Amino acid sequence: MPASEFELINKYFQDLTDKDPSVKCGIGDDAAIIQIPQDKEVVLSMDTLLGGTHFPVDTRPVDIGYKALAVNLSDMAAMGAVPKWVLLSISLPENNEAWLKEFASGFLDLARQHSVSLIGGDMSRGALSITINIQGLVSVDSALKRDGAQKDDLIYVTGTLGDAGAGLDIIQGKLSIGNECAEFFLKSLNRPDVSVEAGLRLRGLANSTIDISDGLIADLGHILDASHVGAEIEVRKIPLSEAMQQCVDETTAWNYALTSGDDYKLCFTASAEQHEQVISTFKKINIPVSCIGKIKQEAGLQLKTPEGTCFEPSGKSYQHF
Amino acid sequence: MPASEFELINKYFQDLTDKDPSVKCGIGDDAAIIQIPQDKEVVLSMDTLLGGTHFPVDTRPVDIGYKALAVNLSDMAAMGAVPKWVLLSISLPENNEAWLKEFASGFLDLARQHSVSLIGGDMSRGALSITINIQGLVSVDSALKRDGAQKDDLIYVTGTLGDAGAGLDIIQGKLSIGNECAEFFLKSLNRPDVSVEAGLRLRGLANSTIDISDGLIADLGHILDASHVGAEIEVRKIPLSEAMQQCVDETTAWNYALTSGDDYKLCFTASAEQHEQVISTFKKINIPVSCIGKIKQEAGLQLKTPEGTCFEPSGKSYQHF
Repeated sequence: MPASEFELINKYFQDLTDKDPSVKCGIGDDAAIIQIPQDKEVVLSMDTLLGGTHFPVDTRPVDIGYKALAVNLSDMAAMGAVPKWVLLSISLPENNEAWLKEFASGFLDLARQHSVSLIGGDMSRGALSITINIQGLVSVDSALKRDGAQKDDLIYVTGTLGDAGAGLDIIQGKLSIGNECAEFFLKSLNRPDVSVEAGLRLRGLANSTIDISDGLIADLGHILDASHVGAEIEVRKIPLSEAMQQCVDETTAWNYALTSGDDYKLCFTASAEQHEQVISTFKKINIPVSCIGKIKQEAGLQLKTPEGTCFEPSGKSYQHF
Repeated sequence: MPASEFELINKYFQDLTDKDPSVKCGIGDDAAIIQIPQDKEVVLSMDTLLGGTHFPVDTRPVDIGYKALAVNLSDMAAMGAVPKWVLLSISLPENNEAWLKEFASGFLDLARQHSVSLIGGDMSRGALSITINIQGLVSVDSALKRDGAQKDDLIYVTGTLGDAGAGLDIIQGKLSIGNECAEFFLKSLNRPDVSVEAGLRLRGLANSTIDISDGLIADLGHILDASHVGAEIEVRKIPLSEAMQQCVDETTAWNYALTSGDDYKLCFTASAEQHEQVISTFKKINIPVSCIGKIKQEAGLQLKTPEGTCFEPSGKSYQHF
């Protein structure tokens, strides 16, 4: 990493460097060096957020910093891993230190909450883009996976769904509602609650887990594909926020909850025998959890309305290409 | 990772996935899982290449694929690490499968040479940009660092310098020369020889090492800064390719070698007592190595001409911002 980048990163991200004894070499050499405890495996992922594609370019830098890390923490949550180290690559159209300072404050805010260390990365001039690579730890063979859903497993989601999608529609002028609800939806979009603690508690409890980044239908679909099963969801059981219940009609709410992305809640399946355990576990950590349906042997995803008919969502989950 | 990305990556990068027993979970879940041998540390870095900033946008995709990985392998070389696993994030302006196929072939070509596994990443639509995160292994406490240069160490570089810079000037219309030399310079720019083997051999031999990505002055400068020392370079000892010696005058050649980036050769320092060992080691692996100067106690970098005067380079090393 060249000196100018090094200086900028040291200036704004200093608090996140050089404090973790597992980091043998952090920012300032050609690469970082980390030590891995013997009984652990390394869980790692990388996500890029492009201005104009993954977030509106006029999003506040403090929110971009927060969200870029949240999206990556959410991948750790979905694996049941403890997030530990991140590398950060920023591309900015100009040498804008004010932007960088704000970005860093949002990033640091969330990084401190989860005690993750920034150990490297780079900075370039170009179209606004943030890439984060995150590394976490999990005990050998205890990671949560997508491919373990079993017939008759109950299907759960954490928190409420669709709020971030409503937030994006507000920004894009497609949804017009009262201020209070709008504020809640925008916060859901820009400052997603990540479920790291929930992921940790699900180890040994869930048969399959994924984070909802592209919409419930799309992401539950990945579990079904990987596990070679199908599912039935009761749409009335899908958890909706008060704002969602107040501000839009039921069909619109279900559409948001089923098809809009960026919620970063967890969707998981667990054996029906574990139901009480699931409920009490989430009560302990004070994270809402809802059972929304059941895994079926037959392929396909059925969305049942209270009337027993099939709900046909009109939205379309986020496609990267 | 959503299905569409997953399918595209599986289609073009299949050969690089699912073959490495250390990969407990590769492409297709929220994150990858790798196993680390007990006696090893993980060395990791991440580099972004932006179209128009780090390479001309009309560079052949096959060369972009090769170079994006080469740049990251070079960081592993500079640490003396064995490259093992990569995550790849691609942003493309359109869903261009022909581009992706060509990119993959260049990437795979180099990845196979170094037996690295592709274990994750993502794809988005946006300005052309490639981010690679690479992980390697090194025995505990044996990584090469920047901060170990000692007074009276000899300074070495591998290969020849400045060729990639001349290649970039040809593309940008700033250098006009004969076809044969031009071809060599363009190959140096687009298909840099990375020195992974050299890095491995330098463990226990070099006191400090860096890869030359931003130009010799800039990168040797990082060693000097980190080690709190200075250096004297004899410019006539800087290794120049035959093409460089034939096609440009001496002053221009020295300028390229000292200030232009993208060479991805190694610069290292070693105790003078190790000189014979350095020479015989590089002879064994058939990589050219040149001693170009000496570390001094006094800060600063002096560039001595054969006449004993100070050479004043006219170029400027690459600045990321």
